[in-house]
Amino acid sequence: MAEGYSSIPNTPLLKDELDIVIPTIRNLDFLEMWRPFFQPYHLIIVQDGDPSKTIKVPEGFDYELYNRNDINRILGPKASCISFKDSACRCFGYMISKKKYIYTIDDDCFVAKDPSGKQINALEQHIKNLLTPSTPFFFNTLYDPFRDGADFVRGYPFSLREGVTTAVSHGLWLNIPDYDAPTQLVKPHERNTSVLFTRYVDAVLTVPKGTLFPMCGMNLAFNRELIGPAMYFGLMGDGQPIGRYDDMWAGWCTKVICDHLGLGVKTGLPYIWHSKASNPFANLKKEYNGIFWQEELIPFFQSAVLSKDCTTVQKCYIELSKQVREKLGKIDPYFNKLADAMVTWIEAWDELNPSGAAAEKPNGPAK
Amino acid sequence: MAEGYSSIPNTPLLKDELDIVIPTIRNLDFLEMWRPFFQPYHLIIVQDGDPSKTIKVPEGFDYELYNRNDINRILGPKASCISFKDSACRCFGYMISKKKYIYTIDDDCFVAKDPSGKQINALEQHIKNLLTPSTPFFFNTLYDPFRDGADFVRGYPFSLREGVTTAVSHGLWLNIPDYDAPTQLVKPHERNTSVLFTRYVDAVLTVPKGTLFPMCGMNLAFNRELIGPAMYFGLMGDGQPIGRYDDMWAGWCTKVICDHLGLGVKTGLPYIWHSKASNPFANLKKEYNGIFWQEELIPFFQSAVLSKDCTTVQKCYIELSKQVREKLGKIDPYFNKLADAMVTWIEAWDELNPSGAAAEKPNGPAK
Repeated sequence: MAEGYSSIPNTPLLKDELDIVIPTIRNLDFLEMWRPFFQPYHLIIVQDGDPSKTIKVPEGFDYELYNRNDINRILGPKASCISFKDSACRCFGYMISKKKYIYTIDDDCFVAKDPSGKQINALEQHIKNLLTPSTPFFFNTLYDPFRDGADFVRGYPFSLREGVTTAVSHGLWLNIPDYDAPTQLVKPHERNTSVLFTRYVDAVLTVPKGTLFPMCGMNLAFNRELIGPAMYFGLMGDGQPIGRYDDMWAGWCTKVICDHLGLGVKTGLPYIWHSKASNPFANLKKEYNGIFWQEELIPFFQSAVLSKDCTTVQKCYIELSKQVREKLGKIDPYFNKLADAMVTWIEAWDELNPSGAAAEKPNGPAK
Repeated sequence: MAEGYSSIPNTPLLKDELDIVIPTIRNLDFLEMWRPFFQPYHLIIVQDGDPSKTIKVPEGFDYELYNRNDINRILGPKASCISFKDSACRCFGYMISKKKYIYTIDDDCFVAKDPSGKQINALEQHIKNLLTPSTPFFFNTLYDPFRDGADFVRGYPFSLREGVTTAVSHGLWLNIPDYDAPTQLVKPHERNTSVLFTRYVDAVLTVPKGTLFPMCGMNLAFNRELIGPAMYFGLMGDGQPIGRYDDMWAGWCTKVICDHLGLGVKTGLPYIWHSKASNPFANLKKEYNGIFWQEELIPFFQSAVLSKDCTTVQKCYIELSKQVREKLGKIDPYFNKLADAMVTWIEAWDELNPSGAAAEKPNGPAK
């Protein structure tokens, strides 16, 4: 930390209101670099793969850890909606959390530096993004008007300047961009970890209403109270015909529901340093169905309309699951299974998060 | 130029295919700074205000200059559609040009520097923007995928990666942001020309389909063949109840038509250095009707639908003029006058640009 780190004035820590969710299969040495930024927070670690393996967490962090046995015990038969051997399992952490905000990060993501060499406090920027409004109804050419030194430009309607509450803050990556397997294969030099490849773009912006975007789960924050039940990462990995579309699925569902409910989604800053690209050959095997199916999924989500009765995220999500079954089931039986899992997910969410009831922590293995 | 300037590899000059349009009321000393970048091009200078005044243009530039007398002589009664005593008069230059591309810039805009201190060749970046596709149907989180070192991220549908042809490149401003009068009044320190206020954001991005944006005419390039007839800057200034909404009006019409015709609009780089803010009190007088009317204009443009018969920009624009009369006429009689002027503009455009005919230059006063 000799270089110091950049700080955003007056950003609250939200120490008691935010959980950090980390899916992993290994010891969490990467947390050492994040210590100055993450140590004030409670961590929810979702251990994927072999539950008999012990995951080491560096000293001094406050955390609870759930492995597959824990998930099965807590959710019972409903555990079927939580993916296994895929980072999609992270969404169990969203469900078990009792906090207002979630930040989720991959364990191969490190602290990035801004162009002046200062370490970037990613969480602080996410909090700033979440606590300032979004502007989904009209594009501001100077990007996020709520950043210091920015504003709405001439021609921006005054009635739209209040904006809407931000539900999602999607952060980006330096070093290894989040490419699909075909792009990884075609551009192997971009897997070179020694090259700072991605351009540092000093901007945050609202994804406009009606526009879908590819939401990556590597560096993502959201308001769990507002949008949590939509953040289901689907059925991926073990026993499923698809992988690496978990965050995309969540992003498309979330964006449609945010648009319907009048909530905002931001993308841009903060950057994290993504240390290693996954294997493009393994990725291709996981992705190929997704690459194919995606061509029908995007028009589906672009034209999805939720009825006026859908006044809560849960109602929106159940409605969406019906449309998935009806319109995507014919592509592949997988989508019927996924539609079932979407319903199971909401049932499990409501079980762990009884509305109105005190935020009781279930009998989980806090460690 | 001691610092050198940043250059984009392999960008064609388009020397014979691009005109630079400059509206002005004064000597064009500002061109000295632009000499290395603008001298290869033909300039179309549209002199506003008193036509008896002589505008000095630095030696060595190839230009033609039109004052109000010229406009009246060339367009006859149709000259009524060209604004007077307002920079909206610049659109006469778009009409009289015979080139494929237009770049228009205000005479208080100078060469900006990138963060490394290099002078920015704004025109080169605009050309790059115009010659690479736009991606209006899906948001790419790493911004323009066609920039060097960028690409489409995981989850971006492959069928949408071809993109669409770019019609408009909207550039930004360092130093003095393009704020409306109320914002200028509330943030007087942002009129301080000695402070580099605006953040340099190293990005170009497509404004998504269905999303309107505030298009500023200070630093703007477009493909005249594709979208020229939509770039009408309306009735502003002398004798009109509104000013400073000329470029906004053009931007809203253009965006609706680009969306209808499947053309792309980009915003972001390049930056120019905007040297002085206009007087906020004078601006308020020009703007107050626009600020008020805008609240109805935006919903109008957001819901405007063009019929399938509208297969050319001209047809789109005439159709839009009918909708303006029908739906906005009731706000103020001004909009009936504007709807008439929109029709006159298209008639004048077609007269000066007979389709299929050789690109004959009208008997204008090339100087």
